Amino acid sequence: MSNLDPVLSHIDENLSAATERLFELMRIPSISTDPAFKEHCDAAADWLVSDLASMGVTATKRATPGHPMVVGHTNGTGKHVTFYGHYDVQPVDPLDLWHSDPFAPALEDTDAGKVIRGRGAADDKGQLMTFVEACRAWIAVHGSLPINVSFFFEGEEESGSPSLIPFMRENKDELSSDLALICDTGMFDPKTPAISTQLRGLLGEELTITGPRIDLHSGMYGGAAINPIRVLSKIIASLHDAEGRVTVPGFYEGVPEMSPELQKQWEDLNFDDAAFLEAVGLSELAGEHGKTALEMLWARPTCEVNGINAGYTGDGFKTVLPSKASAKISFRLVGTQDPHAIREAFRQMVQDALPADCSVEFKGHGNSSAVQMSTADPAFEKARLALSDEWPNPAAFVGCGGSIPIAGHFKTELDTDAMLIGFGRDDDAIHSPNEKYDLESFHKGMRSWARVLDALSR
Amino acid sequence: MSNLDPVLSHIDENLSAATERLFELMRIPSISTDPAFKEHCDAAADWLVSDLASMGVTATKRATPGHPMVVGHTNGTGKHVTFYGHYDVQPVDPLDLWHSDPFAPALEDTDAGKVIRGRGAADDKGQLMTFVEACRAWIAVHGSLPINVSFFFEGEEESGSPSLIPFMRENKDELSSDLALICDTGMFDPKTPAISTQLRGLLGEELTITGPRIDLHSGMYGGAAINPIRVLSKIIASLHDAEGRVTVPGFYEGVPEMSPELQKQWEDLNFDDAAFLEAVGLSELAGEHGKTALEMLWARPTCEVNGINAGYTGDGFKTVLPSKASAKISFRLVGTQDPHAIREAFRQMVQDALPADCSVEFKGHGNSSAVQMSTADPAFEKARLALSDEWPNPAAFVGCGGSIPIAGHFKTELDTDAMLIGFGRDDDAIHSPNEKYDLESFHKGMRSWARVLDALSR
Repeated sequence: MSNLDPVLSHIDENLSAATERLFELMRIPSISTDPAFKEHCDAAADWLVSDLASMGVTATKRATPGHPMVVGHTNGTGKHVTFYGHYDVQPVDPLDLWHSDPFAPALEDTDAGKVIRGRGAADDKGQLMTFVEACRAWIAVHGSLPINVSFFFEGEEESGSPSLIPFMRENKDELSSDLALICDTGMFDPKTPAISTQLRGLLGEELTITGPRIDLHSGMYGGAAINPIRVLSKIIASLHDAEGRVTVPGFYEGVPEMSPELQKQWEDLNFDDAAFLEAVGLSELAGEHGKTALEMLWARPTCEVNGINAGYTGDGFKTVLPSKASAKISFRLVGTQDPHAIREAFRQMVQDALPADCSVEFKGHGNSSAVQMSTADPAFEKARLALSDEWPNPAAFVGCGGSIPIAGHFKTELDTDAMLIGFGRDDDAIHSPNEKYDLESFHKGMRSWARVLDALSR
Repeated sequence: MSNLDPVLSHIDENLSAATERLFELMRIPSISTDPAFKEHCDAAADWLVSDLASMGVTATKRATPGHPMVVGHTNGTGKHVTFYGHYDVQPVDPLDLWHSDPFAPALEDTDAGKVIRGRGAADDKGQLMTFVEACRAWIAVHGSLPINVSFFFEGEEESGSPSLIPFMRENKDELSSDLALICDTGMFDPKTPAISTQLRGLLGEELTITGPRIDLHSGMYGGAAINPIRVLSKIIASLHDAEGRVTVPGFYEGVPEMSPELQKQWEDLNFDDAAFLEAVGLSELAGEHGKTALEMLWARPTCEVNGINAGYTGDGFKTVLPSKASAKISFRLVGTQDPHAIREAFRQMVQDALPADCSVEFKGHGNSSAVQMSTADPAFEKARLALSDEWPNPAAFVGCGGSIPIAGHFKTELDTDAMLIGFGRDDDAIHSPNEKYDLESFHKGMRSWARVLDALSR
């Protein structure tokens, strides 16, 4: 009997205890972007320290100017990996669209099987705990892990990770290892596990356009005074051309053409564009003309408006002509697109589009370049085979439309490659109301990590 | 000695008591558009009933499906006028821009003299009370009014007056009179009183565009899924052409060319476009090319966006791709523009502009045609001369950019002409933070009404 089998059995037998532990963590409303939830972020960090300690892992909460980090070490032998996850979650508005309290997690029966419902179920508390529980099972069965594992948990991932790079620099020796493991991505489909080897970068911008000095009455000034909502709308409407391409000058510098090999690999995945869209009530791809969905999501940059706000937005009507109009805009980046150059070009484009009497203020919300993993490290193929043993279909190397800046930071700050394995599904509704994580993702995720730890020990 | 002089003296001697009464009314947060303030609207109606009773006027609070009306009668002799004002006020957001509590009114010294600060100071509680106080002074001095006065106060003016027309129809005999007097407009300038003889109409529309069925993560769907904020922005950007004209099909049907006489009359007012704009931090007219400010405000129709809201708008950043995006849009109408036809044309235009996978829901927020007063009634010239006696400059017949549907309703529902006299100033910041009413407007407003009552009795 291998070392692995009793670990897998232990995971199977203790699934409900593991789920209850995840629920404990999910009950803490650790929304990092909203200062009102600061104490809850701190509480989530404390919970993780205590949970690691209960497994015999030496862990500490480490202060930052923002929310704390949690770092733990097992001081084992063999290959040294650092596992990264984040304990903070997205805001929950609009709250009225949730069918249950986002911070009262529960198991729900659905047509597709049991799911864990609640904010953070998939992003990232459930995923983070798949790894922690795999380690707990190894230690419970064998008294130790098959390799040397360090833990590194962040509480600011959903708010731009302002403390991350300084913390990595200050603790470079402690956080460096042979390989970083990250669990914050998805399966290719419910039967096909994935290792994400290219991630888009992210640039966030908030702009506020001011016209009149004060809010005006549209009866007294309407028609004569400039309206900043109209100015902002015109700017947003101008950000894409008729082909769906982004119009910011120089935007496509550094966007690579896809290699025929990669194109073939992705074609072989037989991604179902129609089903992908249908799941969210859509029927047509709305991006750059002539691209497939996978290209749009993994290989092409975007410009999206994530929020817009101005004037009176409550119930009823108010004939105000507002002084200010704001929007939050983000760019997903690929290849070697330079976030700093794009930020400058975007700001200049907005400035150039302003009519008389308008001014604009910008606020940057973090920026990260796209990341391309090197899969030359044999650990990648070992992990791919280990995952293939657990799931119905073999694992695939895939791209990822989301931005996981930490993967790039491991490389640039710690000179450590990162391997991204995750068990999320497209319909998890992360960042949305009614977020869920399939119980199967949680269960087989733990089993997958147990297998990967075993594979990396060989 | 005339009957008038002791009334004017009584007003002068009792200014501070009158101001304190206005403060009492202003302390009641009677925001009609927000259901949370329903009880306060009721309290404001009660206050008015009690205040009228204290002057010996028989007044009653009258229930409607919305906020109550207040109706009072003096049963005097001579010409019968019905005075209309509204006791409800606009919402106060954004509250953080107020320098003091909007519902804690106070006298403030400013460079331009003393002002009454607070929500409703000018719109319309302060204006309403100029008339009530003028009546109180007449009664105090002479035991009665020089003409027969009825009072009619509404509590839904700032939320589209849904109960007004039904109430007028049900109480037609009681509310009809020889002439309606309305105090909800402004001076032409601080030295020149005005009687408003043409008012723009108003059409309010709220639209909500839905794209994906749920909010999406911009990393997982950005680039491929339609973004309703982009769709809405494009529609808003298309509502005006490069000349500043509204593009809704058929919009300009019924917009009259100005007569040379009216053009001359308005030119003679020597309106200072630059000063008008400069007061709110602007330097250029932003409306239809080739029109003067007075034309834009009094004689031309508009389309304005009064509010827009979608996605994440709190602190920080959230990479959401929202399911829905909403805007509140209003049209100011002139001449014989048909609000119903324009509503239909606007909705059709939006429908036609929707890309695949998007749907739209509309909500109408009231509509009123423009109103043109007949100044043939000698009461208009009598009132104009009475106002000219009170102020440095003679009174003028002017247009009004705002929409005061009640003026049209008096004509269509009660067959009563309306005379609009008000003492607001352009910088009163009505509908904005830090609303004020000059103490001079309040004081000379009361004196003006005392003079008008006297003039109408001759």
